[in-house]
Amino acid sequence: MAFEKMIKNAFDESRNNCRFGDTLEEIKEIQDYIKNAEKIYIPNKDGVKVEVLNKVLNEYGLPQAEILQINTNTADTNRIPALAKAYMALDQSECDLIIARGRLGIPGSGSLLIFIDNKGRILTAGMSPSHVIHQKSLEEAVYEEAVEALEKIGFEKVI
Amino acid sequence: MAFEKMIKNAFDESRNNCRFGDTLEEIKEIQDYIKNAEKIYIPNKDGVKVEVLNKVLNEYGLPQAEILQINTNTADTNRIPALAKAYMALDQSECDLIIARGRLGIPGSGSLLIFIDNKGRILTAGMSPSHVIHQKSLEEAVYEEAVEALEKIGFEKVI
Repeated sequence: MAFEKMIKNAFDESRNNCRFGDTLEEIKEIQDYIKNAEKIYIPNKDGVKVEVLNKVLNEYGLPQAEILQINTNTADTNRIPALAKAYMALDQSECDLIIARGRLGIPGSGSLLIFIDNKGRILTAGMSPSHVIHQKSLEEAVYEEAVEALEKIGFEKVI
Repeated sequence: MAFEKMIKNAFDESRNNCRFGDTLEEIKEIQDYIKNAEKIYIPNKDGVKVEVLNKVLNEYGLPQAEILQINTNTADTNRIPALAKAYMALDQSECDLIIARGRLGIPGSGSLLIFIDNKGRILTAGMSPSHVIHQKSLEEAVYEEAVEALEKIGFEKVI
């Protein structure tokens, strides 16, 4: 019940006007959840993103992910397509952790790579501008988004 | 009706398996919306973030924002507190554009600075890790998130 307790405490702080940002203990809880994930799914049509993401997870000493082959085309009708993909995976599988990538908002808003837990809560995320702005390859963009997501919660490369 | 048409077209592409990322035209539409915003609100308790955000808007030749003084403490019960703050401002004011900043997800997940339009659609965003990770001042973090949000949709500094 680590997250539930942490969420309650953080909201009590907000309500009492004494919330002054995230704490190292909270970040450590997120790290532990990801480190201990036994089944990680990436909803995806093909394997390109999965390969890059597993490379990143490996570099940070984290468990490997598997592809979850579901059709996520309709996620683009959602206000946050990346999150919609993550929720589709959550509702159609049993796993501890989902890493999903899709559009951030309306067309033109770029991409969002998001980590959610087994209740659909956001643990961390990384973002990129559209390809037409950054001109990076898909592999490069996914790599950098995943690194951003992990480093912002304090993970460091082990290899 | 520019966004509505663009959203319809983009979804038709997704549904027909021929969506290959955002286009320059889509990014241009988002830019135009922000450039033409007549009333921009920042829901906030104090003026610190507003001052920094107006500095950034000015550097990119964009219209200035105003503070919207509403109590956003309860936003932290939401799954995406930053977005919840933005929606609270949308539902309690009349404006074209809202720039809100809050937590990305659960405690420890860092911060999200989000631009939404007058229908609550996400135009762009910037993110930071928690202060305990990046050790930057609030002003510095907000500045960098706003720059990230504007540059990812192709804006460039004019001064």
